[in-house]
Amino acid sequence: MIKRSNNYCVIMAGGIGSRFWPLSTHKFPKQFQDILGTGRTMIQQTYGRISSIIPDENIFVITNKEYTELCRAQLPNVPEYNIVGEPMIKNTAACNLYMIYKIALQNPSANIIVLPADHLILNEARFLEKAELGFALAASHEYLITLGISPSRPDTGYGYIQYLPSGDSGYYKVKTFTEKPSVELAKSFIESGDFLWNAGIFLWNVKVILTSYQKYLPEMVQQFSSCEFNNGKEKNCIELIYPKLTKVSIDHAILEKADNVYVIPADLGWSDLGTWTSVYENADKNEDNNAINSRNILTYNSGNNIICVKNKNKAAIIDGMEDYIVVDTDKALLICPRENDQLIKKYINDLKKLKKGNKFL
Amino acid sequence: MIKRSNNYCVIMAGGIGSRFWPLSTHKFPKQFQDILGTGRTMIQQTYGRISSIIPDENIFVITNKEYTELCRAQLPNVPEYNIVGEPMIKNTAACNLYMIYKIALQNPSANIIVLPADHLILNEARFLEKAELGFALAASHEYLITLGISPSRPDTGYGYIQYLPSGDSGYYKVKTFTEKPSVELAKSFIESGDFLWNAGIFLWNVKVILTSYQKYLPEMVQQFSSCEFNNGKEKNCIELIYPKLTKVSIDHAILEKADNVYVIPADLGWSDLGTWTSVYENADKNEDNNAINSRNILTYNSGNNIICVKNKNKAAIIDGMEDYIVVDTDKALLICPRENDQLIKKYINDLKKLKKGNKFL
Repeated sequence: MIKRSNNYCVIMAGGIGSRFWPLSTHKFPKQFQDILGTGRTMIQQTYGRISSIIPDENIFVITNKEYTELCRAQLPNVPEYNIVGEPMIKNTAACNLYMIYKIALQNPSANIIVLPADHLILNEARFLEKAELGFALAASHEYLITLGISPSRPDTGYGYIQYLPSGDSGYYKVKTFTEKPSVELAKSFIESGDFLWNAGIFLWNVKVILTSYQKYLPEMVQQFSSCEFNNGKEKNCIELIYPKLTKVSIDHAILEKADNVYVIPADLGWSDLGTWTSVYENADKNEDNNAINSRNILTYNSGNNIICVKNKNKAAIIDGMEDYIVVDTDKALLICPRENDQLIKKYINDLKKLKKGNKFL
Repeated sequence: MIKRSNNYCVIMAGGIGSRFWPLSTHKFPKQFQDILGTGRTMIQQTYGRISSIIPDENIFVITNKEYTELCRAQLPNVPEYNIVGEPMIKNTAACNLYMIYKIALQNPSANIIVLPADHLILNEARFLEKAELGFALAASHEYLITLGISPSRPDTGYGYIQYLPSGDSGYYKVKTFTEKPSVELAKSFIESGDFLWNAGIFLWNVKVILTSYQKYLPEMVQQFSSCEFNNGKEKNCIELIYPKLTKVSIDHAILEKADNVYVIPADLGWSDLGTWTSVYENADKNEDNNAINSRNILTYNSGNNIICVKNKNKAAIIDGMEDYIVVDTDKALLICPRENDQLIKKYINDLKKLKKGNKFL
């Protein structure tokens, strides 16, 4: 008799990735794109990484119902019924509880690792080692476990985890969570040395996390417990309860409040690839420090640019550009200074004003 | 009985317009594009201008055989058999002699105005007035007549016509032709006041121009006179003689040598739209001096650019660009400083080296 693994994975793939416009669009967001030109999309990389320690039948994907077909096409080895579509966007508390109910019903002793679909991890061996440590802790302790990244700069876009440094067990009790601090605060975090970035990677036993939901989100638990799961009645019930669910992140609703949260510091070569600048930092660059995704792009007197032409049969001539983002798709062209990559949401809003129902967003 | 007009027009439409890449391509060159966004292509504008004084059956188009279908589609009122395809590129002496043979056979008293298909003329009334004067001169004198444009700058890309200023008849005997002078020479031309730009617009009676061909290109005349025209034998014979014809411009072979050349100074608001810079100068510009071809282009901190996105449903965000050319088509993207518009042929050559048989040129 084959022992069924207690270890499960939930890949969260519901984001719309607007900061990566125009490559990432509402119809085809970042996690389904090969942002770095590696030959695999972000979600395929995420699946590939975890599939060496989790069997396919224990890998679940939670996404918006718009993207279930994309997920199935990109992850053909994941069982179709493990790819679940939410009827609407409700942040991470809801989607995680949904997955907890489905997995707990299959295996009441399940331990789950939660992974964002669209993050970069360069150090795969280290990741797997820390994931195994997290699974061992989750199976043996009533801990909610996160992986924490040693911060390399006072980034104000990330969440920070303060931990209590004691011993060298490889995991530490979490003291505080701070989401998107001011730059002054972020600098003091870095200096203090006991802060890590929250990478949104979590590990827990289904019983332990469900207890936390009952404590901190009892109404949400009540709504989900009105449904049956893993049968034909699930979908209708989910559509019924979803509009009523609170839009809140699992970080804010549970992890910031719970007193059984532990962090495993993990030097993963991690990036959330949240902006074109972070893509630039992680991409291969040519002798002029241009990150270029196609051999049909020629540059002249140009350096430190990120140049992405989605159609690799299309030619591009880039002359006299320094520190720019140039992204071309069939629907849109973006040319802006790299330092303006935070303005992309503004650009999109301005385009939305041009006409209703336009196709390029 | 309706008197048939003796006045004919030949529109020369064989250029490949590589300086307008990527909008202009070998398959779809400049004369068939609406470069300035006026709603009509360059050849349609040229036809529209002359058709108010020449009946459609007297309008001929000479182009490369690759483009005859494009001409027919864009000029549905011109009789199909008046749109003639050359089997290969042979410069303007050959194509004009071809047209002279065809038209002289129809009407031995024909007067012809020769027009490049891809030039801009803003002052249409002035153009028609000067064309009428040219036709009258061509019908009554043994003159080869050109229209000359008052030069506005010492442009080294144009040909210059020096004339003998005497009287105020509105036309003058030509003294010299100078093709593409040095900048010093061009400056001295402008200062002297008796030089005009050669706009490539010619008027002549078929008998007079044929006499000049017999004098200056007797071999070419011999080759053409071996063919029959305006019947089923024409095409085969043309294909037979074309490979043997000299590649030479009519300016160089005849006009620079003949002593019966006259020029009509004509302030036409003329441009050969030979470069993106000349398009920029002639295009409508917005409050930031950007020439933009589509309402789905948004600019930020950007001025003095020419921005052309061929697909008008495509969005474009242009941030932080000053004095640039941005041209986007489905096959290629060009971003370069406006002052580098003369490098486009170099860019194309560099792209050609990337791979043989590429589709973006």
